[in-house]
Formats: sequence, structure tokens, C-alpha cells
Amino acid sequence: MRRSSSPSESLFGPLFGDPAVDAELSDAAVLRAMLDVEAALARAQAACGVVPAPAAEAIAAACAARDADPDVRSLAGRSQAAGNPVVPRVRDLTAAVPEHARPFVHHGATSQDVLDTALALVARRSLGPLLRALAGAGDAAADLADRHRADVLAGRTLGQQAAVTTFGMVAAGWLHGLDAAQEALRAAGDGLAVSFGGPVGTLAALGGAGPAVVDRLAAELGLAAPVLPWHTDRQRVLALAAALARVAVAAGKVAGDVVLLAQSEVGEVAEGGDGRGGSSALPHKRNPVDAVLVTAAARRAPGLAATLFAAGVHEHQRATGAWHAEWEPLLDLLSLTGGAACRTGALLGRLRVDTGRMRRNLAATGGLLMAESVAALLAPSLGRTAAHDLVAECAADAARRGVPLRTVLTGDPRVTAAATAEQIDTALDETRWLGSAQQFVTAALRWHAARRRPAEEGTT
Amino acid sequence: MRRSSSPSESLFGPLFGDPAVDAELSDAAVLRAMLDVEAALARAQAACGVVPAPAAEAIAAACAARDADPDVRSLAGRSQAAGNPVVPRVRDLTAAVPEHARPFVHHGATSQDVLDTALALVARRSLGPLLRALAGAGDAAADLADRHRADVLAGRTLGQQAAVTTFGMVAAGWLHGLDAAQEALRAAGDGLAVSFGGPVGTLAALGGAGPAVVDRLAAELGLAAPVLPWHTDRQRVLALAAALARVAVAAGKVAGDVVLLAQSEVGEVAEGGDGRGGSSALPHKRNPVDAVLVTAAARRAPGLAATLFAAGVHEHQRATGAWHAEWEPLLDLLSLTGGAACRTGALLGRLRVDTGRMRRNLAATGGLLMAESVAALLAPSLGRTAAHDLVAECAADAARRGVPLRTVLTGDPRVTAAATAEQIDTALDETRWLGSAQQFVTAALRWHAARRRPAEEGTT
Amino acid sequence: MRRSSSPSESLFGPLFGDPAVDAELSDAAVLRAMLDVEAALARAQAACGVVPAPAAEAIAAACAARDADPDVRSLAGRSQAAGNPVVPRVRDLTAAVPEHARPFVHHGATSQDVLDTALALVARRSLGPLLRALAGAGDAAADLADRHRADVLAGRTLGQQAAVTTFGMVAAGWLHGLDAAQEALRAAGDGLAVSFGGPVGTLAALGGAGPAVVDRLAAELGLAAPVLPWHTDRQRVLALAAALARVAVAAGKVAGDVVLLAQSEVGEVAEGGDGRGGSSALPHKRNPVDAVLVTAAARRAPGLAATLFAAGVHEHQRATGAWHAEWEPLLDLLSLTGGAACRTGALLGRLRVDTGRMRRNLAATGGLLMAESVAALLAPSLGRTAAHDLVAECAADAARRGVPLRTVLTGDPRVTAAATAEQIDTALDETRWLGSAQQFVTAALRWHAARRRPAEEGTT
Amino acid sequence: MRRSSSPSESLFGPLFGDPAVDAELSDAAVLRAMLDVEAALARAQAACGVVPAPAAEAIAAACAARDADPDVRSLAGRSQAAGNPVVPRVRDLTAAVPEHARPFVHHGATSQDVLDTALALVARRSLGPLLRALAGAGDAAADLADRHRADVLAGRTLGQQAAVTTFGMVAAGWLHGLDAAQEALRAAGDGLAVSFGGPVGTLAALGGAGPAVVDRLAAELGLAAPVLPWHTDRQRVLALAAALARVAVAAGKVAGDVVLLAQSEVGEVAEGGDGRGGSSALPHKRNPVDAVLVTAAARRAPGLAATLFAAGVHEHQRATGAWHAEWEPLLDLLSLTGGAACRTGALLGRLRVDTGRMRRNLAATGGLLMAESVAALLAPSLGRTAAHDLVAECAADAARRGVPLRTVLTGDPRVTAAATAEQIDTALDETRWLGSAQQFVTAALRWHAARRRPAEEGTT
Repeated sequence: MRRSSSPSESLFGPLFGDPAVDAELSDAAVLRAMLDVEAALARAQAACGVVPAPAAEAIAAACAARDADPDVRSLAGRSQAAGNPVVPRVRDLTAAVPEHARPFVHHGATSQDVLDTALALVARRSLGPLLRALAGAGDAAADLADRHRADVLAGRTLGQQAAVTTFGMVAAGWLHGLDAAQEALRAAGDGLAVSFGGPVGTLAALGGAGPAVVDRLAAELGLAAPVLPWHTDRQRVLALAAALARVAVAAGKVAGDVVLLAQSEVGEVAEGGDGRGGSSALPHKRNPVDAVLVTAAARRAPGLAATLFAAGVHEHQRATGAWHAEWEPLLDLLSLTGGAACRTGALLGRLRVDTGRMRRNLAATGGLLMAESVAALLAPSLGRTAAHDLVAECAADAARRGVPLRTVLTGDPRVTAAATAEQIDTALDETRWLGSAQQFVTAALRWHAARRRPAEEGTT
Repeated sequence: MRRSSSPSESLFGPLFGDPAVDAELSDAAVLRAMLDVEAALARAQAACGVVPAPAAEAIAAACAARDADPDVRSLAGRSQAAGNPVVPRVRDLTAAVPEHARPFVHHGATSQDVLDTALALVARRSLGPLLRALAGAGDAAADLADRHRADVLAGRTLGQQAAVTTFGMVAAGWLHGLDAAQEALRAAGDGLAVSFGGPVGTLAALGGAGPAVVDRLAAELGLAAPVLPWHTDRQRVLALAAALARVAVAAGKVAGDVVLLAQSEVGEVAEGGDGRGGSSALPHKRNPVDAVLVTAAARRAPGLAATLFAAGVHEHQRATGAWHAEWEPLLDLLSLTGGAACRTGALLGRLRVDTGRMRRNLAATGGLLMAESVAALLAPSLGRTAAHDLVAECAADAARRGVPLRTVLTGDPRVTAAATAEQIDTALDETRWLGSAQQFVTAALRWHAARRRPAEEGTT
Repeated sequence: MRRSSSPSESLFGPLFGDPAVDAELSDAAVLRAMLDVEAALARAQAACGVVPAPAAEAIAAACAARDADPDVRSLAGRSQAAGNPVVPRVRDLTAAVPEHARPFVHHGATSQDVLDTALALVARRSLGPLLRALAGAGDAAADLADRHRADVLAGRTLGQQAAVTTFGMVAAGWLHGLDAAQEALRAAGDGLAVSFGGPVGTLAALGGAGPAVVDRLAAELGLAAPVLPWHTDRQRVLALAAALARVAVAAGKVAGDVVLLAQSEVGEVAEGGDGRGGSSALPHKRNPVDAVLVTAAARRAPGLAATLFAAGVHEHQRATGAWHAEWEPLLDLLSLTGGAACRTGALLGRLRVDTGRMRRNLAATGGLLMAESVAALLAPSLGRTAAHDLVAECAADAARRGVPLRTVLTGDPRVTAAATAEQIDTALDETRWLGSAQQFVTAALRWHAARRRPAEEGTT
Repeated sequence: MRRSSSPSESLFGPLFGDPAVDAELSDAAVLRAMLDVEAALARAQAACGVVPAPAAEAIAAACAARDADPDVRSLAGRSQAAGNPVVPRVRDLTAAVPEHARPFVHHGATSQDVLDTALALVARRSLGPLLRALAGAGDAAADLADRHRADVLAGRTLGQQAAVTTFGMVAAGWLHGLDAAQEALRAAGDGLAVSFGGPVGTLAALGGAGPAVVDRLAAELGLAAPVLPWHTDRQRVLALAAALARVAVAAGKVAGDVVLLAQSEVGEVAEGGDGRGGSSALPHKRNPVDAVLVTAAARRAPGLAATLFAAGVHEHQRATGAWHAEWEPLLDLLSLTGGAACRTGALLGRLRVDTGRMRRNLAATGGLLMAESVAALLAPSLGRTAAHDLVAECAADAARRGVPLRTVLTGDPRVTAAATAEQIDTALDETRWLGSAQQFVTAALRWHAARRRPAEEGTT
């Protein structure tokens, strides 16, 4: 559901959206974008000699004048008879221009041309703050990756402590997911095109001037020019939907890990931010509020994207329902992803990292995490399978007896026949079993740095 | 995305929602429902001796006083620190009650108790007009089924005219789908329960009085009493989501058929309603606007339902994100389904049925539609397969030559050896090849009549 | 994708399905069910005088004879020209019956009648073992709920230890979710109906005998008789899909909690079962394999259900694609849910519960979990808000200083002015702050016991 | 669900898949790919000095030897204890290599490395025939666009004849959708990378040689080398899923239009192919079988893609269930999209286009389709709104009286005051109201030609 001022001003909106992104997605913004399209259309057609210049100027002037304060409620009510808000919008605009310009309002266009282009425009506009937020989140992740590149913690797989890694490596993974999603989103944004085909895509009313007007219109609005009208070719919408959902997933990965690392029993990170996360009933609690809300966004994005894909087949020259099914889900997906990006940036920027707790949690399993290291030590002499099985036996024994793995290993003659105590200690040293972690962190940071855009640097 | 007054007042809202349903789903309605819950909770606890009666009265009075005009924007803004709107709502309420009552505001409850119960309440309230609209749509379909029970038209399968049926049979199919979905929705609505478990579901703050207060609270609010707190058991939400999506699908079936039957080349039905469906560019067009919008709703509902199912696993005692992911999709699904139900009723009530065109369309295939009838005539003598193949050959021949099937049949010695010309004419008579259509129509009408509820009858 | 023998015999099948359920869902089972339908159809029509008895006997005999070993590959290949496997199946059957019976094979039916009924039949058959598995899972959960009704552990909300509950309460929540989903699934199974309408739903070839044959056919096959043909009314399919997804979610709730409770840092439960959960690289690991696979099933079910809902609108008298889109997702959903139900039963039956660790984990937060209890103690004298804030302050202080909450409380004059040390100790006693937990456990057990079916009792 | 030989050999498989694509996706192919990965891993590590060359040779030899005929059923059964098929596969391989090589089998790897890389490999391999099929479909669409660039037909919007366009323009729209989706799929295929990170992504067992081995492994297998291990960064999987769903949608657009254009009442195109589309009950029918099945695929793809997106957040270093949830949906999506691409190519290659019927259908509305053209003629003198309203009035009059629009226009003094009869006739000439249709067709053909790849040209 969409609202007049901005999603961020509704009851649940501030929890899921971001004011800067949502300002571009409000009902008023969509209505303004419609007039931006009508104005640009008149100007483009005047430039191509299809419409008299004075008419185009009058239309553009009327669009600018009406732009200020659209009456959403009235227009929405009057949109019901036509099935879309363009019909009353055009009727109002026509009434507002001088007589001589009236024949040239909305000239050659169909409702879908205007609404598709307006939605492309608001999408493009909202991607500005959205991509900046994403760049900010990436920078924050990069900072964490760099600062904590050597801070060890337990790598967990299937919920179990598995082997040692570094928190820098964790953050580098977050960073790279955000960067990859951002690249997809930029590409999808660059593909957003003007829609102008007239009733059935031929631009019949323009004679042969169609493609020239399309190009000019695209230049006017800062959108791409399509190869041919895309009324029923929704690949651009799907590319955008998929990219947005990928951003939501990349943000959801960060948030999901933060939720797990912030569990009472783990406690390795906590959300910063004063006064956040208090509970109505539980005075001692500090809930990871931002992470929770980003997680919620990541759960909602796939259903919205799926709706757009399921509505992706548009029949004939303009669709009966599939098109109408796109409007709200697309705007909702932009808003939701915008909120997730901003919230992830905030979350990463103020994340409290407890490297001491990370080390203590490693110690709690008595060296079991280094089992792979020990198995690697024993493999050359015992064979990989036998070494694996022997260490598994020792690990189970250590767990059962509640003693460190080292104790069991140094007391097992099969182990001591294959390795000295010193070798065992080396194999149990966590900082010596990090493999290529540092190299991977560096690679992720380089990839990030190479793709940062100057325009976005200034904002973070 | 949700808005303060009602979804129907946003830009796209009037196209997808219905004012009567949406009035129960607005942000203000949700906020009012929260106070209804707090008031009922205080009264229920007073009745069970958990809270002093004067405190409960004061709380209920404050809830009633604040009820009138919630400041959605302020509350929404303040909800961010806590991650849900209950925390500031309770804080405001507490500030508004006299000192003596303050310890008993929100007593024993957690945020999720209040929001889950409030959402159950708005859902229940919105189901009133929604089910009435659905009953109205059913009655309109029943009326069509009854009136047109003998009016023949081409039954179409895989887009091809296949055999003859009646428009009453078509409408009976619509009716039964609507009735079945309605039954599921009523059951899901009856299952909507109060949520009251306190922070982790034990109602620790109430000593042993928990179940008694839950029962009383349920009675106060007209909701079901759950067997045990359902903070992380979302079966009720899923039952509601599935039933709503089923209603959207049943409505979408009506709308989809109307769109196809209203095609220019078919023209068997048209949407009524003056001044509806005009095109911005095409003066001659009459678009099936209601059907198109219902179709759009049917395309959007599955994604919303899927989001609720995908967020259906809530971990531990209260979930990190899965719960938050429910709020907007559930409200959107209620609004969308409400709009679809109302629009389907309107559409059916003013549907223009062109029985003459139905008969003419039948004639256009030169009797090909009666191929099954002819094959049945020939099967006893030729064998089913041979009869099928022979009629297929004749039909292909008739189509190729552009002559009626009768011409080919009566000119084929293999056919005339097996049947007289009179038998062939009987086999080609459409009104004699309707099988049990009338019985099925009657059965669907009886099923509908048997399930109509007095309360809903008055409104249609 | 479907396979000839059974999903459980494919590469990933054994990880997601269950042999007993999958045996009913194999390609061969579907093909056998088609002949069961053809045989029952012949018998039902003979009983109603539509088909000669000897022909029906011959058809039934041929169906029984061919039943043993269908050549899936040949049939599948030949199904391409017609777009469904019924056409070649009927052709083969017709060739196999004696001359006199041939006109009566598949009499009056269309492909969709046979395939819809066959799928209803395999679904019904697979629900036998599926519901037994679910009943078994419920019994295992009930057993845990009963045995651990007084064993305290930390209730967690938003990933944080929030307040104390009992493991019996946790298991009672699992139980009730499973029970509710099971009830929905039983109802959906009972609604599975025969499909018999002929090409366009009129049963034209049967004269007026249609409804009588439908009733008889339903009785023959043990399925419900529909009010009217449901070729394009898919409410039954949607009810089944939703119920299956609800089962997957209820199972996923159990599995999700087990994964979290089994985390290395929590360690309150572990999957039993010798030799399960070994890692290829990490000798010490014991992965919660069953829980992981059930979690995966719960993630896949919503997408399959959504596909069925998105394909729920079937146009005209038989759909172009929406029907075809149902076949594999429905069978996959049955298999996946069957596997999840069985695996959840196994998981619950051998779950290792470490009540000692549960208590130790409670202690680790130094009494912070009892903050609500302490706030409740102080609320009458300080006011609810002030008490909440004071305890929050003390809890933060305790966490910062790493001392028990008791130490801070008894050292704070604002606290000691409002409560004695003894009162504080009582407020910090976990076993005295369980509210109605035991009553809720009892209620869930009673609900379960009241709904157990004798037929299912024997199997668990 | 997946099967041992190939999806195309299951009951429904041949209806949805394609043998050439499915051969790369069978269970056997996945198992073979796992050994391809193990062999390449050994070779890559030998090349980097991590593993002795003779051991690598022995491992590669054993992989090649076992490659021939994997026992899917046995392996699948043994995969249950570990939760994935890699564990028993590695155990078998280890047993098959000589003693000296055993420590180096699967060296440094975790199960997910092998399965992720194997799935990337089978995906990449299946994209060969899939992209060729798609290129073939594009070429067939291009041929239709070129041949029919001037053949007029009714452009339809919201199911209504709206204005005239050309069939070449329709086909150009199909072409461009297929081309755009193909480009996205190629890019996603190029992004498929080897996965090699060891248990927690650090490649601990390789010391510092990790990145070098990863690069070498990628070169060995012809896959991309990732920046860092992607165990829980699923952006590549999501990019592939989205691209596949886009292809399914682009194919579904073609198929959906064919279904509608092939309706009995429209009859402008028909599927070619002898003996296809026969009905079991209706001898005269010719169902658009391929289009129906492609439509079904387009309905199923979004749910599968949504499952992958919903499972896109993988927690910590390897996920509990989200990863397992990917396997079957990804393979199913590849198979389904492959089938849709092939079927669309076949469909387009043999499409029967009835240009005569297209013209006759245009004529049937008595010139109403040219309303926009007439309105454009009158707009300069009457004003756009008045012209629109006047033509709407005339069109409604023509429809009501059942006479050509020309009759009404030439009899209306308001019209004749503004235009001569000759001008009206010109305005009613369909071939003069095609705007830029030809230019758009040419642009789409050029875009297509510029992106054809030599490798794919040979195959079409």
C-alpha cells in the first residue's frame, strides 16, 4: 500500500523505509513524475517538430505550476473509472493549459507510457540515496574488515563452532556481498528507460518521428532510450526487481550474522546506538533492533520480487492486470530495500565488536576447533581418513570428559607416535591456522576500492 | 506500505482496496486497536483480581479518550528505537493515566501480545465487510447461474472452442469457487485469537491466573482464546493468509474469464457501469476495468501469502524479524482481497451478457464443437478410437474447406454407413448435448443457499 | 522434477523425502493411479447403466493387468504430442482391451478428469504415511513436553535471553503447531475429490447420468464427490497446498529451535542417532543433520505453495498452462512435507536434552533474566515505569561490572527502600516465576490427546 | 525432485525439460561433476606444490575411472547420515586411490566446496545447449519479425482491439525480450565461480597457497575465480536464478501471445508440427501444446527463483538449511528454463501465421481501430479533448448501430465540418497509421544481429 506523503510517514514505514529514499517514492512524487514526463514529452516533440514550440512551452509551464501540491486523494478517487491515475491527471493538465496547447498535451502517448516512465523516474531518483546508503554500508564493512583482519573468532558451520577464522574475514564476506549486489543494482538502474510507444507501440500519431522523439525524451529525463517500446517486455522491471532483492539479501546476511553473534550466549558483537533496543517488559534487554528490521526486510523482498516475476508475462500490446500488479510491489520493494541499505550502514557504523569475547568463546571448546589442524598434522603419517577418524575419536573423548583436546592428544600413543608435543602445540595455535584469510580480506578491500564512485565517496 | 488514514486514500489504493474494508485496516485503526487491547486487558485482569478495579477503569477511560485521534506520525517516529510501535504507545498511555493506575498499564504483557491481538482485531473487523462483499459477489454469481442456466455458449479448453456448455454453468463454477473460499475465510476468521503470554509465553507476572485472564480477554474482544500463547506458533496467521489468497484466486477466476469473454473477438460479456473503462488515447475502447484490477489483485496475493509462509518459522520464544515481516504483508493482503471481493461483486452485479453473441460464436465453427457428440454417435458401431479418428478427419476437412461439419459428415460414406442424417442432425443439436449442466447448476445454487448467513443476507 | 521409481531413490531425494510417503508419489504410482481411475470409471458407469457390465469388467481387468509395471519412459516420450500423459495411457489401454470394450474405455472423460483424479488419489494415499509420521512427531513432542514440564531454561526473544520458561513449554509450543497443521492437512485431505466433467464439465456424453456416476466413482475410489466439476475451480488444490506448507512450517519451527539450541555456545539439546552429522573436514563436529534438512524443507515449501496459488486462476473450462504448472510442484510439496514430517518425528524421538546445561546457561547472566520479576516486585511502590527503568539501570550496571544482578540490587538504596533482601531473593528464584507454564503444557497435551485418531495411534 | 538419469526421462520431464539440457543436469551428471572437481582440485594443488604430483595423478585417474557409472541409489542412501552426498562420494574415492594418494583426496576442502563447484559446473554445462536454444528461438523470432514487418493486425490492449500494428512488430517485441534475457543469462553464466574455501573459508590447510590454488582450479574447470570464498555469499546463485526466471518470462511472453492469437475466435496463428495437440475427447481440436507447456514453465519459474532468494541469506560460515534448500530448485529451474527455451524455438520455427485472418479480424470492427487516427485528424481543429470525445461518441454510435465507423463519421456534420471525406478515408487507412513500426522492427533486428555469437550461429 502506498501513501501520499511518503512511506516513511506511515505507522510501520519508519521501521522499514528510509526518509531520503522514501521521499522519492511517495504518491506525490509519483504524481510529480507524471507531469515531469508530460513536460519532457512536449519539449521533446517540439524539438523534433512534432508539436509547436509555444504549445510545448505552455504545457511545460503548466506542469511546473501544478507540480507543487498534487491533490492525491481527489486524483486517486477519479482514477477508478479508467483503472489508472494517468487519465484524470491528463484531463486536469489539459484543462490547465491554454486553448492552443490542448491538442498537444499527452500527444501520441498512452497511459502506460506516462506511468511506466514516471515509475522509472522515481525509481531512478530513489536509487541515488539508496546507492549512497549501500556505498556507506560497504565502506563501514570495509572498515571492519580492515581493522579486524587478524582478530580470531570461531567460524561456525551448521550452527557449530567448526574452525577458526577472523572477524575481518567475516566482514569481508559481508562487504563483498554488498558490493556485488550494488553493482547489479547500478546496472539495473542504468537500464531504466523511458516508455513511449503510444496505444499499441507504433507511435502512430508521430508519423516517422517516433525514434527521434524517444531519444530526445530519454535525454530530457536522464533515462535510457529503449530499442523499441517495452509496454509488454518487462525485462527492465525484472532486472531491477532482482537487483533490489539481491541487495536485500546482502543486507540480510549482515543482519542475520549480527543477530546470531549478538545472542546472549555468544555476545561477540552488539548494536551500538544509545537508547535503542529497549524492551517494553524486560528492563535488562538490548535488542538488536536494526538487525531485526533488516532481517524482516530480507524476508519480505523475495515475495515482492516473485510477484513481479509472476506478473512478468504481459500479453498482446498492453496487459490486463499484469501491469497493474507491478505498481505497488515495485515501489514497496524500492522502499524496503532502501530502508535495509540505510539501516545496514547505520548498524555497521556503530557495531560494537568484543574481540575478547571472541577469543574466550574459542577457548571454551578446549581446542576442538583446531581438530582440522591436528588432522592435517597427522595425515601424512596416518593417512587422511585414519587421521580424521583418530582426531574425531579424541575430540569426542575430550568432549565427553570435559578436558581440553590437547590433554587427550598428548595422552594418546597413536598421536604421540606421529607427532611431537611441540608439533601438537603448533597445530593447536589458532593464529597459525588462518590460511589465506588475510589475503582474502585484502582482495575484498581492493575489489571494493576499485569500484567506489567519486560521487558516492563524498557522502559516506 | 501502510498509510495513516486508510489504504483507500493513497494513490493506488482506490484501485485495489475498498473503503469499507480499508477503514478497518488504516494505521489509525491499528493504533486504536492497540488501545482496545490495553483496555480489555486491564478489564480482564480486574475481573480476575490481578489488577485493582479502579486502575482498570482508569486505564480503560484513558484508552477511550486517546482513541479518537492518534498522532500516527509522531508515534511511528518514536517506534524506531524499540523496533515496534507498541513501546511508545504504552509509554504515552502510561503517562495519560493517573498515578495509581500506572503500574497496571500493559500489565504482564509484551509488545507482541498487544500488536498480535490488535492485528487479529483489525483483521476480524475487516472480515465483516469483506465477507459481506464476498457474499454479495456469490449472490450475483448465483443470480447469473440461475438466469442463464440454459443459455448455450462455447466451452473453451486450452483457448480453443471445445464443446458446448451454458453460461449458467460458467457462473455456477464462479459461484462455487467463491463459496468455497468464503467458507475457508470464515473458518480462518473464527480462529483469530487473542495473544497474551508475556515476555516468553509463561505469563509469569500473573502467577497462576494466566489462562483465566486469557479467556476473559478473548471474551472482551470477541476473539478466540488460544490453547497456549502463540508468539512463535503462526498457524493462525498462515490459515488466514491462505484463505485470503484463496478468495483472491476465486475472484481472479471470475475476472479472468470476464476479460477473455469480453475480448473484441469474443464479445460475449461486457462490464456494465457508465463511464467506466474509457481510454486516454483510444476513444472507442471500453476496457474491462474492474476485471483487470481484480486480475491484478489475484496476481499479487500469492506473493504476499508466500511472504507470510516464508516468515512462518519463528524461532525461540519470539522471533528476530519473522514477526516484523508479517505486519505489512498481512494488512496488504486483507486490503487487496477486500478490494477484489467488492470489485467482483460490482462486476458480477452489472455484467452485460450477450447470449446472442454466444450463439453466433458457436455457429462460427460450423458444428465442429459437436464433434464429441458425433463421435459418441459413431462409437458404438465403429469403436471409440476409430470414431474419434474419423470425426477428427472430417473436422479437419471441414476446417480446411471452410464448410460446416455437417456437410462433410453427410458426404462421408463411412459416416453415413453408421448413422442416418437424422441421427447426425440430432448429434449436431447443441441443446441436446448439455449432459448434466442443469443439474450441476442446481447443485451449486443449493450449496450456496445452504451456507448463506442471515447476517450477510441483509447486506446484499 | 519427478522420477520413475520414487523421489527417495534420486540423488537428493533421500535427504528431503521419506520412502513410505514417496512410494505413493512415484511416476509409477501416478501411472497406476490413472488406471485405477479408468477402472473405477468403467465400473461406476456400469453400475449406473451407462456402460455394459462386460465392457467394464474387461476394462478393469486390463487396468489390473497393466498395473504391474508401467513403462514410464516410453509413455513420457509419447506424452509430448498431446501435452499430457493421459492421451498415450488411454491409447495403450484401449489397445489392450477386447474389441467389445473399446468404445467404453475413458468414456465421457477428458484427460484432466483422469489426471486430476489420479493426483488426488496419490495425494490421498501419500497422506496416510504422512499423517502417521506427523502424529508420531506430535507424540514425541508431547512426550518431551510432559517430561520436561518443570525443567527451566532461558526463554529467548530477538536472540536475547529474556526470561525463564521451561523446556516442556517449548515442546508444548512445537506440539501445538504440529497438531494445528495436522488438523488442516486432514481436512484438506478429506476434501480431495474425484474429477469427472468431460471436455467442458457438462458430462455431455452421459446424458443425465452424470451426478450419479460422479457419486459412484467417488465411492469406488474413496475420494469426495464434488458439487460440480472442478476443472477450473482449484480451491481443493490450494487448500491442500496451504495445509502442506503449514505442516512444513510447523516442522520447521521444531527444527529451527533445535538448530539454535544445539549451537556450540548453547548446547542445550543435541540430535541423537549414532554416526549422524559427521563432517567431511572437521572430525569433532556433530551437525544437527535432521534439523538442517527439515529447515531446508521449510524454506522450500512456501515457494512451491506460492506456485500453486499463482497458478490458481484457471481460465474458461480448462486452462492453458496453469493446470500443467500444478503437477510437479504438488507432488514435490507432498514429498518434501512427507520427508519433513518423518524427519521431525525421528529428530524429536531421539533428541538429547541437557537440562543441566539449560540451568547453567540461565546462571550465566547473573540473574538478569529475572529482571521482569524484580521490576514486578518494585512496581507497586515505585510505579511500573520507574521500576522498569530502575531495574534496567541495575541490569546495565551488573552487566558492565560483570557481577550478579543480586549484588547490584541489594546495594542500591532505591531498591532496598522498596523491598527486603528476602523479597529480592524470592523475586530472583527462577522456579517461582514460571506463571502458567505448567497449565499451558497441560492444555496442549489435552488438545493433542483429544485429537489423536485410533488408526494413527497404532503406528507410533 | 531430481532423478538419476535425467529429468527428461521422468513422467512429466519430457513435457517441461529438453534432453540436451537435461543430460547435463541428471543425478549422474552431478555425481560426475563432483569427481571432476576432486580431480581438478588435486591437479591444481599439485601445480601449486601443495600436493605431490603422483598423488594428484592417481586421484585424477581414479576420478576418471569412477566417472563412468555412478551408483546413484547407493550413494544417495549413504548421504543421509552426513546430510549431503559429498561425504560418501569422497569416502568412496579415497578407498579407490592407492595408499600414497589418500591423504591428498579432497585436500583442504569442505563438502560445500565440492558440491557448489559441481553445481556451478553442471549449470555452466547446461547453459551451452540452453543458450543455443535461446539463440535459435531468437533467430526464429527475428525471421518472423522480418518477414511480417508490414503485415497488419489488430494491436490489443486490455483484451480489446485498440489500434493497428504489424505482426513483425509483435515478433520484434518477442525477439527483444528473448535477447535481453539471453544477455542476462550469459552474464550470470560467466559469473559462475569455483568454490574453494575449506571448512570456514580460510583455506587453512593450504597455508598461504589458497588464492593461487583457487585461480588454478578455476582455470582447470573453466569457471570464474571468486574474489574470496562464497560459501555464504550467494549473489552468484541469485544472479543465475534471476536470469533463468527472466528467460522463462521472455519465453512465456511468446507462448502467452501465441495462445491468445490461436484462440478459435482469433485464429491468427497456429502451432505447426504434425500430429501435435490432439485431444483425448475432442477430435476437432488442435491444442497449442508447446505454447501451453511454455506458459506452464513461466508460471513455475518465479516460485523456484523466489525459493532461492528466500534462501539467500546464509548465516555464519556455512548455513543450516539455506544451502540445502538451493540444490533441487536450482537444478529444476535450469531444466524448466531449458525446456522452455527449446520449446519456444520449436514453436516459433514452425508457427503458422494467417495474415489473411489478421486483416479480416481488423475489418470486423468496422474501422473502430482507426479511432485514434481520426481523432488525430480532428484534433487540430476541434482540440484534442473535444476530438477524442466526438470520435468516442461516433464509435459508440457505430458499434450500437452495427455500421462501419466511416458511415457515422461521414454523416456527422461536426466531423465533416472539420475534415473532407478524402481526409477521413486516409485517416481510416490502416497501412498509413503504423508510425514507426518498421523502424522499431529494424532496430530490434539490428540489436539481435549485433549480439549473435559465432559459436551459437553454427547451431541454429
